[in-house]
Amino acid sequence: MCAAIRSTATGVPMPSCVPFDQLEPGQTASLGKTITEADILLFSAVSMDTNPVHLNQELADETLFKGRVAHGMLCGSLISAVLGTVLPGLGTIYLTQSMRFRAPVRIGDTVTAEVEVASLDHEKKRATMRTRCFVRGKVVIEGEAVVIPPTEAVVAVAQNEKRAAE
Amino acid sequence: MCAAIRSTATGVPMPSCVPFDQLEPGQTASLGKTITEADILLFSAVSMDTNPVHLNQELADETLFKGRVAHGMLCGSLISAVLGTVLPGLGTIYLTQSMRFRAPVRIGDTVTAEVEVASLDHEKKRATMRTRCFVRGKVVIEGEAVVIPPTEAVVAVAQNEKRAAE
Repeated sequence: MCAAIRSTATGVPMPSCVPFDQLEPGQTASLGKTITEADILLFSAVSMDTNPVHLNQELADETLFKGRVAHGMLCGSLISAVLGTVLPGLGTIYLTQSMRFRAPVRIGDTVTAEVEVASLDHEKKRATMRTRCFVRGKVVIEGEAVVIPPTEAVVAVAQNEKRAAE
Repeated sequence: MCAAIRSTATGVPMPSCVPFDQLEPGQTASLGKTITEADILLFSAVSMDTNPVHLNQELADETLFKGRVAHGMLCGSLISAVLGTVLPGLGTIYLTQSMRFRAPVRIGDTVTAEVEVASLDHEKKRATMRTRCFVRGKVVIEGEAVVIPPTEAVVAVAQNEKRAAE
């Protein structure tokens, strides 16, 4: 439908959307990002999570992690990005998210968030998505999301936006 | 122990920490924040979640939400702030978080994230925390977190930091 839309101006992928009827268990999508010091500073400011384990190298060195680590929720937010911009994408309504933080993520680590259609509730038009984040192939966060994928009407809006951009 | 530490320089609360042995079911802590447009822009940049429902007023007006809404994970990240800086605070290790997004949060809404000690696993030294976010007294996010509260050793580090700041 409107998957893999690209802005002709910038080449940056624009949000895609896959309506409920086109979802199938096993479909996957992912987004990756290298976690920078700037990400940690901005996330601390937005979230008010100023725990020194994220911001204070000397104190973080004395913890179990032996150094600064990124906020778990910062890495988890990449899952929201995949759900909200790729699969199911634009128009998705986020109902629930569970996360298990399995390993620390450090500055310089490249995190890939992957979502996979796990099951579909055809009566309620809801999708359960398996959600995982990886660093160098190792799972750092795993969990599950339940979403309401976009309707055909939302897809039509997105297509109008795409046409307007062309 | 080291709860309610304040920086003498700025008056800003410094991270507190409550070690496992001082936690009791029913203890609560909270942090509040007004969600601004800047928060949404910064969170979009950090998370890569550029869903137009957060950024494009005209398109957001056509959705179920009838306007721009904050990222659910942005509001959820305030929970991480309370857990990591107040209760149990500095040194807490975040194991799991579940969130149910019950209502949209808009620019200008003041979100209060509250955590409550729900139960303690004395064998594994883990705490289960009830986690909720409120806007005008209404629950917008509810869920649960499992954490490893700080050890006495971490508390000692925090106390050293406090003394150094005085």
